[in-house]
Amino acid sequence: MHTVAKRPRRHLPPFGLGTPRWRCSQEDFTELTWREIPRAPYSNQIPPLSIHIVLPYTLAPSTKNGHVGTLPIAPSSAPPSPNITWHPSLTRAERSDLRKQKGCTVWFTGLSASGKSTIATALEQHLLKLGLASYRLDGDNVRFGLNKDLGFSEKDRNENIRRIGEVAKLFADSSCITLTSFISPYKADRAQARAMHESTANTDSPLPFIEVFVDIPVEEAEKRDPKGLYKKARAGEIKDFTGISAPYEAPEKPEIHIHSEKTSVEEAVVIITKYLEEHGLLKQ
Amino acid sequence: MHTVAKRPRRHLPPFGLGTPRWRCSQEDFTELTWREIPRAPYSNQIPPLSIHIVLPYTLAPSTKNGHVGTLPIAPSSAPPSPNITWHPSLTRAERSDLRKQKGCTVWFTGLSASGKSTIATALEQHLLKLGLASYRLDGDNVRFGLNKDLGFSEKDRNENIRRIGEVAKLFADSSCITLTSFISPYKADRAQARAMHESTANTDSPLPFIEVFVDIPVEEAEKRDPKGLYKKARAGEIKDFTGISAPYEAPEKPEIHIHSEKTSVEEAVVIITKYLEEHGLLKQ
Repeated sequence: MHTVAKRPRRHLPPFGLGTPRWRCSQEDFTELTWREIPRAPYSNQIPPLSIHIVLPYTLAPSTKNGHVGTLPIAPSSAPPSPNITWHPSLTRAERSDLRKQKGCTVWFTGLSASGKSTIATALEQHLLKLGLASYRLDGDNVRFGLNKDLGFSEKDRNENIRRIGEVAKLFADSSCITLTSFISPYKADRAQARAMHESTANTDSPLPFIEVFVDIPVEEAEKRDPKGLYKKARAGEIKDFTGISAPYEAPEKPEIHIHSEKTSVEEAVVIITKYLEEHGLLKQ
Repeated sequence: MHTVAKRPRRHLPPFGLGTPRWRCSQEDFTELTWREIPRAPYSNQIPPLSIHIVLPYTLAPSTKNGHVGTLPIAPSSAPPSPNITWHPSLTRAERSDLRKQKGCTVWFTGLSASGKSTIATALEQHLLKLGLASYRLDGDNVRFGLNKDLGFSEKDRNENIRRIGEVAKLFADSSCITLTSFISPYKADRAQARAMHESTANTDSPLPFIEVFVDIPVEEAEKRDPKGLYKKARAGEIKDFTGISAPYEAPEKPEIHIHSEKTSVEEAVVIITKYLEEHGLLKQ
């Protein structure tokens, strides 16, 4: 609250856009106080001003009473000042409150052709339709971008999964339900991704990490073989192919275990969505 | 739409929770069709069923007419089937429609101590308070995570910025207003990050990339020196320090140019927010 004594003309900004409802002159009063009325920024760049006049003054119809009224004022040469408040850092909990959503990572693992990406794609769309922020990391958007410098050796696979874990953690930290869809055959790599999420090195609470094992017998996956990869692996054209010439270390205690040869995509989405709901992850 | 002919009892799930409004018996009709009524999943796990009876049957008061009515049915042993609809891929535009927000990247560049991170932090909070998804990538969450394997040689700096560009692009693709706050001293690296965003290799529309040059004379930055880094660089304790012993290649045509020694944090936030608003990036 500012007090402008006796010289209102020097402090009151000039009338500007629109027709003023009423005008003041110095003779009309000896003292006034004014205060900007908080308003959603940018809804109108002319900030309203509340003026309180100490000596009675007969105000025009737009006023509340004989002492208090509002009038539009024009922006001065200074930029408009919306209600910008901030503090040096923002905790995960504060962001989650503002976003009205908790972040987490749903980590799909399973053989090639097990149905991971199909389920993840359907789940992503279902969550988006529920009004939630969700995003899927998969080969299409990671292998050809962030991780395009990596091959398929065990070392490169480790680094591939390490980076995916770190990016998933950033997305989860941003209050997004993050879905990752990669074979991720090694237990140690998945454990590392989980550990990153559950780390509480700073004061933030851990990020939920939900491992979804999309389980299918390798014979069944090989029958499906939508991209002909198993065939190439059997022919020796692809080396280190998970399930054929490279190991797949199945999760022992995944949060969710889906037998994809017996479960429809829609049923799998229901199972995972129910898990998220039961763990309080579908709303803040 | 399923058609159940002549043997409705074998196909209709048994009545369960709640009192059924009406019951059917096989004698009452010779054919019926049924269809689940879409409903927001989980609002009630008993899916409503719409039944159409071919031969006239007098229905109880809850019916719409003599031929069509609804009744609650109990869940069978199969999981409930909420209205899961999906298609194999999801375009950026479809995601943006569902999220009711466009994604973009606001790329801050400037000397150490120019105020990049302070402005980005305030902007992030302002955007979150406006109800928008926003996330800030900075040294704290990237250098100690995704890029912890990288040092400060020019090659590692290139790779650092390449990865940040790729991750920012993923966030922008997820319909998030992504803020990156890194010195990013090399023009070529920033150009690469921009090119990634603007690439339309697939059918998606390009992602807006807004370069914000947080400009400060190096003498002023050196005076501020909140972390004592300039002092260490002058003493030779830090090699390749931007502005002292390594180049800073200023942007020639940044979308936004902020002179941070003359502009308050709040004013900078207003300038950037106005830019986003004027370019249609604050709402869908």
